[in-house]
Amino acid sequence: MDRNLCLEPATVATVLHDERQLRITWADGHTSIFDSLWLRDNCPQDRDPRTGQRLVDIADLPQDPKLLSVRQPDDNSLEILWVDEPRSAQFSLSWIRRHCYCDQHRCSTRPAAVLWRGSADGIRRVRYSDVLRNQDALGDWLTSLIRYGITFLSEVPCEHGRVLSVAALAGYVTETNYGRIFDVWSLPDPNHLAYTDAGLGLHTDNPYRDPVPGFQFLHCLQSSDEGGDSLFADGFAVAADMKDRDPDVFAVLSRTPVRFTFKDADSDLTAERPLISLDHRGDTAAIHYNNRSIAPPSLPSEEMQRYYPAYRLFSQMLRDPRYIMRLRLRPGDLVAFYNHRVLHGRTGFRDLGVRRHLQGCYVSPDGVFSTFALLHRNQERVPA
Amino acid sequence: MDRNLCLEPATVATVLHDERQLRITWADGHTSIFDSLWLRDNCPQDRDPRTGQRLVDIADLPQDPKLLSVRQPDDNSLEILWVDEPRSAQFSLSWIRRHCYCDQHRCSTRPAAVLWRGSADGIRRVRYSDVLRNQDALGDWLTSLIRYGITFLSEVPCEHGRVLSVAALAGYVTETNYGRIFDVWSLPDPNHLAYTDAGLGLHTDNPYRDPVPGFQFLHCLQSSDEGGDSLFADGFAVAADMKDRDPDVFAVLSRTPVRFTFKDADSDLTAERPLISLDHRGDTAAIHYNNRSIAPPSLPSEEMQRYYPAYRLFSQMLRDPRYIMRLRLRPGDLVAFYNHRVLHGRTGFRDLGVRRHLQGCYVSPDGVFSTFALLHRNQERVPA
Repeated sequence: MDRNLCLEPATVATVLHDERQLRITWADGHTSIFDSLWLRDNCPQDRDPRTGQRLVDIADLPQDPKLLSVRQPDDNSLEILWVDEPRSAQFSLSWIRRHCYCDQHRCSTRPAAVLWRGSADGIRRVRYSDVLRNQDALGDWLTSLIRYGITFLSEVPCEHGRVLSVAALAGYVTETNYGRIFDVWSLPDPNHLAYTDAGLGLHTDNPYRDPVPGFQFLHCLQSSDEGGDSLFADGFAVAADMKDRDPDVFAVLSRTPVRFTFKDADSDLTAERPLISLDHRGDTAAIHYNNRSIAPPSLPSEEMQRYYPAYRLFSQMLRDPRYIMRLRLRPGDLVAFYNHRVLHGRTGFRDLGVRRHLQGCYVSPDGVFSTFALLHRNQERVPA
Repeated sequence: MDRNLCLEPATVATVLHDERQLRITWADGHTSIFDSLWLRDNCPQDRDPRTGQRLVDIADLPQDPKLLSVRQPDDNSLEILWVDEPRSAQFSLSWIRRHCYCDQHRCSTRPAAVLWRGSADGIRRVRYSDVLRNQDALGDWLTSLIRYGITFLSEVPCEHGRVLSVAALAGYVTETNYGRIFDVWSLPDPNHLAYTDAGLGLHTDNPYRDPVPGFQFLHCLQSSDEGGDSLFADGFAVAADMKDRDPDVFAVLSRTPVRFTFKDADSDLTAERPLISLDHRGDTAAIHYNNRSIAPPSLPSEEMQRYYPAYRLFSQMLRDPRYIMRLRLRPGDLVAFYNHRVLHGRTGFRDLGVRRHLQGCYVSPDGVFSTFALLHRNQERVPA
């Protein structure tokens, strides 16, 4: 995702430089400062014209290139010369402006998450036929998925395997030991509690896997006569509230490694991760919580004693009704959610006249974010 | 992976307890200490007998269960009662011993990486027909992949798509915008420098993707007459040496977010990660380095000034011949490597009489580790 800023025409008021830095003040008053090495590292002629890929390696570049001259051959470009280098570089001014790295303009790679508790107006339910026909409807549906971590389709034909063609609208299906597609229904000899009629508390799927499935798509082919409501909660909202309320507990959960396992005749999966994963900036990047697959903790005794109360508090917060969206999927409904963020569960059910049946698949994040970015490539702004 | 320790018979010498802790001294002299809450949390009867999955949530358990009595009804088990709870728990002694969480026995989820510089005796080349026929050969091949991050097959039939059936021996193929399978050869109108005859410096694939492809399998169908040697290096060894040599540089590279991008007509991929990713323990978990897809850095000026020299040093180390394994893939050779660890590259080539042609696919880590664990499930120890 390119930043959605700097869309003003890149008109220059003044250009100043010394050996180390270029300082451009734009017509709108903003000042951008670029290091000489950054400019040298990003010379347009060092990009392959066919693919846009960089042709040089940092080790090929001078260690300390000194700016010699900067001039504006026309209204749209800047020509730069460095000391002891014969070659000048031509930058487009709009490119330069778009890549300003001041505090205000530094880009983020993903649209910001909008937290929700119980529900939110921005969570969309879109008709499948509209998504097929109409780029705006597809954009609406994906925007909800990316901003809120959850989105719904209605009137998806109740056909076996249809969930795969819905997934293909967004990205690429992830194959696992459960297959490319999995049937969620009650089985006589289940290898998994999901394949029983038991209620399931809020959880994320497959934290014992590397990588953990990104998006989950679940298509309701048949609902049960009794029970089987779906439950969802925004784990990022729960984590944010916990961080506010008890930063020490949040810190324990974000640094204590938790092992998760799943074993059956054909699989032996184990992975270790904290219940709350932080990114390199210290922001919440993922929630992984699944009481069914947590392995016995293996921690030093003093860490164990800090971990258990924190784990209990998180588990209790996940039962707080104010976080929970409860609804009943009807045949033809399809929910998609970000499994690194949104927890899901269900109430217990009983198959009487009909057999409750969902079909699901996992979809990796990259394709979904790529589809979203392509939809907005030629738009001015990412929709709010 | 279960820990590969504690294989002695679990014979008890003494059992002591107070309200909070159980202390078992085993016949071999080792003492294990278990917290009361840990024991209560892991009662065998709270696991589903069919699936082994946990049926209770931590929020369902008493906050501070007090041990009342511990007795040994027979040589193989331990019966525990807690204050104010009617139900006793029966633990198998061998299970208890296996789950000792003292400093010495705490388990790791993955076999340890063995670092290599240039080459290592443990890196295996196995005949494809042997892997198909023989579980030990399959185990050898996978052990090299998991311990060293790289492994070779020879005499793989030079058929289109055969790489997919090789991948299926190990795990599940990851589909991306390049397809389930990709052809690496020189194209007249490439969307990617890999699809030219250019030399490629050491790199990891697709750091602009989320998740980054785990394992890469490359099957040589045709080598070129001139050039096109393959290069590999163990990024974990480079990172370890850098950490020894210059811990500050290592720290900069492990915390500075770097954006990577790939864009063509059908894809718009962007992700941000440090060149060296650490896990929650502070250990090196992944290397992501690709000079072709690094986006212009977007950092505060003072971070930029720390980042560039660190990035340059890393890039220079990656050219140091002592790290590099150089070899020529022959038709029928298939290399598999862990793309979060092992960097790969090639020398430039010229298609004269024949056209250099590799077919590749990505394979997600979970399936490979599961296959490896299944192979060793009934063995006493993970092979060294």
